[in-house]
Formats: sequence, structure tokens, C-alpha cells
Amino acid sequence: MREKTLRIGILGLGTVGSGVVEFLMRNRGKLGNSHFSLEKVVAKNPAKKRDITLPPGLLSFDSQDILENPKINTIIEVMGGIHPAKEFVLQALEKGKNVITANKALLATLGSEILQKAVENNCYLGVRASNIAAYRLIESLANSPSKIEKLIGIFNGTCNYILTGMEKKGEDLAVLLKEAQTMGYGETDPTDDINGWDTAHKLIVLLGLTFGYFPSIESMYVEGISNITSQDVTFAKELGYKVKLLAITQKKGNVIEARVHPALIPHDRWLARLEGVENGLEIRDEIGLEIGMHAPGAGKYATATAIIEDLICAAQGRKLFLSAQTPSLILKPMGEIETKYYLKFYLIDKAGVLAKIASVLGNHDISIESVIQKGSKSRETNLVPVVMLTHRSREEDIQKALKQINNLPVSKGKPFLIRVEEAML
Amino acid sequence: MREKTLRIGILGLGTVGSGVVEFLMRNRGKLGNSHFSLEKVVAKNPAKKRDITLPPGLLSFDSQDILENPKINTIIEVMGGIHPAKEFVLQALEKGKNVITANKALLATLGSEILQKAVENNCYLGVRASNIAAYRLIESLANSPSKIEKLIGIFNGTCNYILTGMEKKGEDLAVLLKEAQTMGYGETDPTDDINGWDTAHKLIVLLGLTFGYFPSIESMYVEGISNITSQDVTFAKELGYKVKLLAITQKKGNVIEARVHPALIPHDRWLARLEGVENGLEIRDEIGLEIGMHAPGAGKYATATAIIEDLICAAQGRKLFLSAQTPSLILKPMGEIETKYYLKFYLIDKAGVLAKIASVLGNHDISIESVIQKGSKSRETNLVPVVMLTHRSREEDIQKALKQINNLPVSKGKPFLIRVEEAML
Repeated sequence: MREKTLRIGILGLGTVGSGVVEFLMRNRGKLGNSHFSLEKVVAKNPAKKRDITLPPGLLSFDSQDILENPKINTIIEVMGGIHPAKEFVLQALEKGKNVITANKALLATLGSEILQKAVENNCYLGVRASNIAAYRLIESLANSPSKIEKLIGIFNGTCNYILTGMEKKGEDLAVLLKEAQTMGYGETDPTDDINGWDTAHKLIVLLGLTFGYFPSIESMYVEGISNITSQDVTFAKELGYKVKLLAITQKKGNVIEARVHPALIPHDRWLARLEGVENGLEIRDEIGLEIGMHAPGAGKYATATAIIEDLICAAQGRKLFLSAQTPSLILKPMGEIETKYYLKFYLIDKAGVLAKIASVLGNHDISIESVIQKGSKSRETNLVPVVMLTHRSREEDIQKALKQINNLPVSKGKPFLIRVEEAML
Repeated sequence: MREKTLRIGILGLGTVGSGVVEFLMRNRGKLGNSHFSLEKVVAKNPAKKRDITLPPGLLSFDSQDILENPKINTIIEVMGGIHPAKEFVLQALEKGKNVITANKALLATLGSEILQKAVENNCYLGVRASNIAAYRLIESLANSPSKIEKLIGIFNGTCNYILTGMEKKGEDLAVLLKEAQTMGYGETDPTDDINGWDTAHKLIVLLGLTFGYFPSIESMYVEGISNITSQDVTFAKELGYKVKLLAITQKKGNVIEARVHPALIPHDRWLARLEGVENGLEIRDEIGLEIGMHAPGAGKYATATAIIEDLICAAQGRKLFLSAQTPSLILKPMGEIETKYYLKFYLIDKAGVLAKIASVLGNHDISIESVIQKGSKSRETNLVPVVMLTHRSREEDIQKALKQINNLPVSKGKPFLIRVEEAML
């Protein structure tokens, strides 16, 4: 069977775009048994100096040179941002062009609409590059008869770099973030890294891939790492845990949990061993198998390779890698989740205070597994930090108890929690 | 497109066979969109008591009830051993039946012949279950435009359990092997685990999957862990390494390295973090990407799931997962490999001895990176263990130097080496 030749237009000539162009030019029109021709590359800024030299006529600065060109049957969108990427992607699909995109923010926001448009117009939609740490495992599991029950991932290299740095060097977030950026890891604007949105975008795309379900980011619980201090990381270590920013999803029947927040995980668990900018994920299926994978979370060639894999699939006329059905899944409200909690209070250092805290917790059905009261009290304030680890409790109960403790005169400052992700079960 | 119904015969009703039967009976004739019927299960021993109850007429004790049954179009071979598994598999393929097998020893020994027979008879050959730690990653990479350059794997849970135990508890091989067996990990006959053959079989199947190349086990360098002591593991730790039994393959042009031996790997490298019975592998591709995966190395349901995935592929009429071409790869002779070495000598404790050793090494172009001379000398023998770490050297030079050192009067006992697997490059 002769495959269709892909006639490609690339929207965006940044780091990833250049990587794809390099790869295509090096392979001269053939990838395995697939044929392609690179027709047009659209860059934003005519004035920008580039490392890459394109043959004459290939470069343009007008996206319509790709979108309105009937010869081009496949676009690669690597421009980033929601607008005008959204309009371009939808326009391309309406014209029957295959779309391959690395744009996780776009997919997380409009995945459902884009997917539907691709199905309607019988186009290939390639999304591997939107989560390069995860797609190989998810793709392989798409063939598996055993269904994913739980998935936990570390999807943001910058955050993992910062949390590892807190543990190893005792530095604080600001210092470590600057370090990550100097080393070329962080984004120029790290807001979406630190506040958990980048991780949430990747989780949403994963849910789309796995269950055909794209929850809105607003409907999910998303908490970043900006409140984590190296003190917490040290206390966690004493308790036998590491702190990681996790994407967590768990499905039971048609009820699904999907949340992003920092969590304590046991130090000897596989995911806890991912250090620095490493990304990875663990999956547990219905019969109890656990499988893990680690991979680069970003990078010019890693992302370009994922895009090329999508090109090959498109050329082979393969089906969407995305699951096309949208089952009626119900997102579990955050108040109903159950887990263990790390709680930190600043308490006045006098007799009976701990008993008071324990009593409030007990009244909310929260039982305590262990307590650390270390660190000397501050001379000025007479306050001492106290850390507790609870047994499994309900989020709603914890929130109510913390509110009540916050109103006690013996507790100063807002009580602080980090959830604990104990085991895959 | 209506898929063909698979009419299945299972050869073997041990742990894995029962797992597959359970899975099929639970799913009642349907896996996703694929239809199947379980026609016959052949067990070896009529007297054996089994946990599983089969419907009347399903169980037989004569393999020809499956092989000669024209209705059965797919066999699952989970009996193990080379004979009569080989004859049965070839007979099935000649009759045009799909074959799914978990038999790594068989595939490693006769993979090339079996593969050719499958291609000739247009049958599906499923081998996922022969290396459950690796197949998901290999399968996904089969779609990738970037070629595997290097692969390193930990494929034997028993050996990894023993080496981890040496490090954590300081126990010796015999004690830890018994422990592993008591916990149900080791095979009843652990010979193939300990001598590296099980790992080598898995590596050969992987090479077959990846490059369509099945080297004979006799042509490869295969060394097990029987000479590793907890003393070595302790010395390695002081130098910043862990000891692992590795399968290593590296391809440059049409020259390929394929070897199995214990190796020191830097303690912070991902593969070094796999503990106990964990299996895993790391891959580096031509553009420098590193990807790792960990997975259970064995187990009833893990293996059964891999077999079911092959069933689904067979039902969908997919191509062989195995690469069918057999390129003319040349196996690199062991003497030509280059790596760093951990060397251990027992030397007479007097002045000038170290200089003598260093001089022999120097004469063979081997330079020393570091030396540990710890442990007190034995009172009876006046001998002291000395450990050296070399810079990158050629295996042939090392072997010649060790032979010469072995003949020196100052060195007692045979000099001992462990290769060092420093980085992916």
C-alpha cells in the first residue's frame, strides 16, 4: 500500500520548530516508508536572527500561506499560546488538514472541540509532543486489555528541580528558580510552572488521551509549590518522605479524581527517586500492575521526535491516538477525596496546647499517626513549629478542622497542609 | 471491519497459563472489539491438583488435540523449556496458526527460525510475554524515527534482589538466594538466573525485536553474579557505585555489542535506583535522548496481560511486532570493548607492591583513576585487598595485564574484575 505523501506547513520557528525543520531536512523527504515534503515554514518575526538556514521560498511570515494553501495537507503548530493558535488549528481542520501540535495549553483548554473537529473532518490529530514524558506509556497502554485505574506523574522539570534543590541544598524557591533558569530549564515566565498550571495542562491532555475526557482546568483542584519551604522538605525527610509536585488521577466507575498539588511520597517509592528536571509517571491498572517510566520533560529534540512520530502515524493513515469517545465521567469534588495529611502549625509553647489541637482533630474524625516538634521556639514569639502526620482522612474534615484551629488563640499564622500520596492503592 | 474470531488453544496450565485462562473466562469471548473462543487447554499432569476449574471438555492432556485441530487458529505456548515447545510451535506455524509465546529460552535459541516460519505462513507471532519489563518501550520505539543506539537493562529480579541485599544487609549470595526463593521470587532451579542466562535470553529476544538480529547465546559474553561478594558491593559503594547485573547492547553502524555481566553503575544513575526484584531498562537514541522504564519482571498477571495484548493484536490482523528483516550485524568481540574497570587484588603487604601492579597496568595502557586499600590485612596470610578503578581501557589489555599480575609473586589468588558502566555514551 502506497502511503499518502504529507505536504507539510510548520507554524512557528522557535526552538522546537527549528528542531523539526532540521530533522525533516536531514531525512530528505523520507521517514521510514513515509514520504513528505516540507512546503512552508511560517515564523513570527522577520527581524530575528536564526541559527537555521532555510532554502529560498520556504520561509514566510504570513500564516495564511500555509492555511490557505490547498497543497498543504498537514500542519505542525509549534507557535504556542492560545490565540491565534486556536483559530489556526480549527481553520486547518476545517480545510481537512492533519494537525500536529505541541500546545498543551491549547489542548487542555479546547481539546474536546479540537478533537471533535478532527473527527468530523477525518483528520489526524497528533498530540504526542504535548506530554513527551508520558505518551509512550499511554500509547502502549491503549493496546492493553487492562484499564488504567490510577496515574501519578511528575510533569514539571522546573518544580522538581526546585523541590530537589530544597532537599539537597536547603535553598529556597526564589534562589532555586533563578538557578533553574540560568541553566536553561525554566520558562522565561515561570508562573505556569510554579502555580501548577503546566502540570495541570499535561494532566488534562492525558485524561483526554486515556478516557476521552477533558475537564476544564477551573473544575480541577490545582495547587503549585509557592508555599513549600525547605523547612517542610526537611520535616518530610525526617518522616521518611520526599515532597513532589504531582498530577494525580484515579478512576472508580464513572467517578474520577483529577488534581495537581504538592504531596509527600514515601522516599523509597519509585517516583520519589526522580531528581532534578527528570519527569516521569507511574500507572496502576485494574489488576494491580504498576509500571513506571521516566523521560525528559522537554527539550528541542525530544519534542521534535514526538512530532516526527506523529507525522509517521499520519502518513500511515493511522487512527487518532486520542480516544474519541467522551464518556460521562464525573469529577470527584475535592472535599470528598481521602488521603493522609502533613499538617504544620505554629503553636504557643505551653502545656496542654498539643492536646487542644489533637482534640479539634479528633472531633473531626482525624487521627494522628505521628508528631514532630523540633526546631527551637522563636525567642521573640514564643512559637514552635509542630508537624503532624494524620491517618487517612477526608479533605472536607481536614479543612473544617484547620479552620477551627486557625481560630484558636494558641495557634498563630495559618495552619498549613501538604497531602500525602502513600501508595498506589 | 469485522475482525476474525480467534479460536484459541493453550499449551500449558501452570501459573501463567491459569492467569490467561482466568482472564479469558472473565471476559467471556470479547476483548475490546475482538472476539475469541477458548477451545482447548492442554496440561501436562492429569494428577496435579489445580486452583482453577475449567468447563467440561476444555481440558486435555494431549497437545495434538490443539495442534491437529483445524478449528484452532491461535496457540498460546506457556509450557516452557525448549523441547517439545519448539516442535509444537513450528508445527502450529506450519499449519497457519498464530503463535503467542512467553518462552524466552526458546525464542533466544530459535528466534530466527521461528520468525521466518511465521513470515512464510503469514502468522502472527506474539512475544510480548517473553520480556514484560521491556516490551512497552520497545513497541513504542518501533514507531519512532530515532534509532536506538544503546540499551541497558536489569532483567532478572532474583539477581537484583541478591545484589540489593548484599548492599543493604551485607549478606552473601547463598543466604539471599534462599530468601528470594522463600518469598516466591526465584525459580525452583535458579541456575539460569544466577549465571546470567535468563538475562541473556531476554537480551537476545530484545535484539530480535529491535534489529531483527538473534545472536546465539554462545557467541555472546555472558557472566553471572556468582563471583560477586558483599565485600565488592561495599567497596563499590565507597567509590560511589552500585553493582547490578546488566544486559548491555550498543550499535555503531553494523557493529553491535551484546553482553551480560555484573557492572558498577554510578549510584545516582536511574538504573542504579532499581531495588529488590524491580526490572527496568534505559535507552539512548541517536540524537541523545534517554528514556527509562521500570516494570514488574515477572508475575502471573503481568505475564498474562502481555499475552492478552498479543491476542488483541492478532485479532486486529496487525503485523508482527517483531522486526522481520535480518540485517548483517557483526557482533563486536569482547576483547575490543572499552570501558572502565573495577579491579580487586590480594597483595602482600609490603613497600613497592602497589608500584609493581601500577607498572604492569601502565605497560598495558591502563591508567588508574583511584585506589582503595582498606580492610585490615589478614594475620595468617599477610595479604591485603586492594581495589582500583581504571580509566577507560580495552578489555583485551585488561585481560593481558591481569594475567601478568596473576603471575607476580606479590599477588595471591586470582585478580578479579567488574566492568564499570559509567554513562550512556
